[in-house]
Amino acid sequence: MTQDWRLRYAENMRSYEGYSIGKLLSLINDPAIISLAGGLPSPEIFLRSEFLQATQRLLDRHIDRIMQYSAIRGEADLLDAVVTFLNRDGIHAGPENVMITTSGQQGLDLAGRLFLDPGDTVVVERPTFAGALAAFEMQRPDYLGIDMEPDGLDVADLQEVLAHRAATGRLPKFIYVVPDFQNPSGVSMSLDKRSALLDLSERYNIPILEDSPYRALRYRGKQLPSLFSMDQQRGSGRVIGVYTFSKLFCPGMRVGFNIGPPEVIDKMTNIKEGSTLNTPKYNQDMCTAFLTEIDLDAYFERCRAYYSDKMGVFLDALEASFPPERGVTWTRPEGGMFLWVSVPETVDTRQLFHEALKFKVAFVPGEAFYGEQPERNHMRVNFSYPSEAQLREATGRLSDCLDRQGV
Amino acid sequence: MTQDWRLRYAENMRSYEGYSIGKLLSLINDPAIISLAGGLPSPEIFLRSEFLQATQRLLDRHIDRIMQYSAIRGEADLLDAVVTFLNRDGIHAGPENVMITTSGQQGLDLAGRLFLDPGDTVVVERPTFAGALAAFEMQRPDYLGIDMEPDGLDVADLQEVLAHRAATGRLPKFIYVVPDFQNPSGVSMSLDKRSALLDLSERYNIPILEDSPYRALRYRGKQLPSLFSMDQQRGSGRVIGVYTFSKLFCPGMRVGFNIGPPEVIDKMTNIKEGSTLNTPKYNQDMCTAFLTEIDLDAYFERCRAYYSDKMGVFLDALEASFPPERGVTWTRPEGGMFLWVSVPETVDTRQLFHEALKFKVAFVPGEAFYGEQPERNHMRVNFSYPSEAQLREATGRLSDCLDRQGV
Repeated sequence: MTQDWRLRYAENMRSYEGYSIGKLLSLINDPAIISLAGGLPSPEIFLRSEFLQATQRLLDRHIDRIMQYSAIRGEADLLDAVVTFLNRDGIHAGPENVMITTSGQQGLDLAGRLFLDPGDTVVVERPTFAGALAAFEMQRPDYLGIDMEPDGLDVADLQEVLAHRAATGRLPKFIYVVPDFQNPSGVSMSLDKRSALLDLSERYNIPILEDSPYRALRYRGKQLPSLFSMDQQRGSGRVIGVYTFSKLFCPGMRVGFNIGPPEVIDKMTNIKEGSTLNTPKYNQDMCTAFLTEIDLDAYFERCRAYYSDKMGVFLDALEASFPPERGVTWTRPEGGMFLWVSVPETVDTRQLFHEALKFKVAFVPGEAFYGEQPERNHMRVNFSYPSEAQLREATGRLSDCLDRQGV
Repeated sequence: MTQDWRLRYAENMRSYEGYSIGKLLSLINDPAIISLAGGLPSPEIFLRSEFLQATQRLLDRHIDRIMQYSAIRGEADLLDAVVTFLNRDGIHAGPENVMITTSGQQGLDLAGRLFLDPGDTVVVERPTFAGALAAFEMQRPDYLGIDMEPDGLDVADLQEVLAHRAATGRLPKFIYVVPDFQNPSGVSMSLDKRSALLDLSERYNIPILEDSPYRALRYRGKQLPSLFSMDQQRGSGRVIGVYTFSKLFCPGMRVGFNIGPPEVIDKMTNIKEGSTLNTPKYNQDMCTAFLTEIDLDAYFERCRAYYSDKMGVFLDALEASFPPERGVTWTRPEGGMFLWVSVPETVDTRQLFHEALKFKVAFVPGEAFYGEQPERNHMRVNFSYPSEAQLREATGRLSDCLDRQGV
């Protein structure tokens, strides 16, 4: 065994370690720990009987095709169902604008691989989705982080930065945003900012990658149009959408879809072909059944009520445990699955993570969610998976743990 | 719409077009055409009732876990079942040597991404598997093609080339081979050459990527040890194995596995995490059921008998249609799914492909299977999917088509 494998690795991969949160989650192996660290949908909203019935019917009818290779870009039925689903949301696409992905993570990876050379710049929110960083990182880009405000990305700051970059000739390859109930912050981008962001995209001719995993999960406030639909109305064609069935239907099928101009979709399909070939037909067919056989309005309404209640319980518990004088603050999202909790700057949440495990509670330290210059005094907490009783208990444990830190 | 998307693409992707065969297959849309162009296992060997029963049982017991996220590296049950499966084949691995992939294509992509920088050299067989080229191509390597002989790679030529390269300091990053019933040629590497290839791997300290999709499908001759097992006996640790369930069980689940040193497997798992997260649990569980609940000896024996009969029919038909004076030759594989047919050099099989469509028969032009300097007078023909009657009929049509070309 005389191999020094590390010396053989491609430059893009030499320091690559995957998804930083994954390593953390592996530390949470004591069943007594209440984990607010995950990002799992609750099994309580899973459509078990519909899933079983659809499986039975599909296998009765199509077992030979389910066991065989299928089309790289996706099953025609699912492409059509996605077109209809998008149409509900004000997006007018044809099947040529859609490709099925083997998960939203693949959707992000396809974008990273298609657009990024090492050293290229990507605009990301501060904080941003850690899974997107895990995807883009394999191309070793530079991140240009723009702060999140309570109503989303600081578009005015982005404008200044882009103006400066335009003068120096090094514009970003794309702008990555999660406009609806962002992971990790829970923040949504206001309509004005959506509009202003699209102005910048047009003015500087920079594509936007819009990641929309939680869009159907709005618990409060008015639904805002997607960047994709607003861009489409302008006739600009600069937005690429990344979607997944993971939070709407279930993560276990590993199916999502990307939308965009046909030439971009074709090119991403080429990359998918070289990297995984087709998405399994059974898994696609289950998503088709979900989109076409379920009363989606009723189902989403049920999910919204379920998650909204949980978020309410969690917000109340935080309110009760952390009076203003403790200096702990948190976002109050209008949807999604996460809150962003900020603690006094004297506390480093990476260290706090290990302390919290002793108190049998877990969260994700905020530093995982920055492309550059991570802030250390935040944490992402999830409210979709734990029960309401667990959310209350976890808040108490977190309070005790922070108390020990002098907070 | 003022986008020139092409200008935005990463350098690695600007000219990338995916899997060249995929484009060809899309031209074969007339149902009257008998296609020898695919690489599909026959549905006649699919284990339908076992598949249905396993599905029923799995969903009864594990539906919540099947609908949820699961471990990136793979389900523990499947990792264990793979270890046992490998042990049948003389490979002594632990779960730390194995990762589940979302298809053999992903297994190849993970290798390409982990090892290849643009301009790095990869040794490939001439001809080689087009899907591997589709995976590696995304890193823009240089290919060093080494001719296939009737008993496999021309290892003596490889030795000369490596000696020269060692002197000039630019050794290949890895050597990619399909030692058993290679796609496209059907050729298998002799035991002596396996040994000599491992000598070179050790002498020049170059890893080997061993792709083994068809290994269980031997119809004639004696099973030879895998490069992985031989390398393991030497204690060298320079072979990485790429496997898939596609040809053994079914392609539709999109599950395979890679094997290798733990540090390489860990690193590939990182890349899988950033590019697709986990392989769907249902699809993995179906493969676990296949490995643990089927009498594999009996099943493989049935597959071997089935495909061997087809290959026999095809070889007889070729013999009858192409007497030696026509100058058409073909390989006589000991297993797998493909023959490699060579026609006189006056014929360009890319042009012949379009002629053949008029005769309602299709194959893959050989040029798709070269990393560099493609030869134009070969074709890959598949015998696993068409029926015996179709194989006979297709051979007649091919004969008529070539007759028209003066062959």
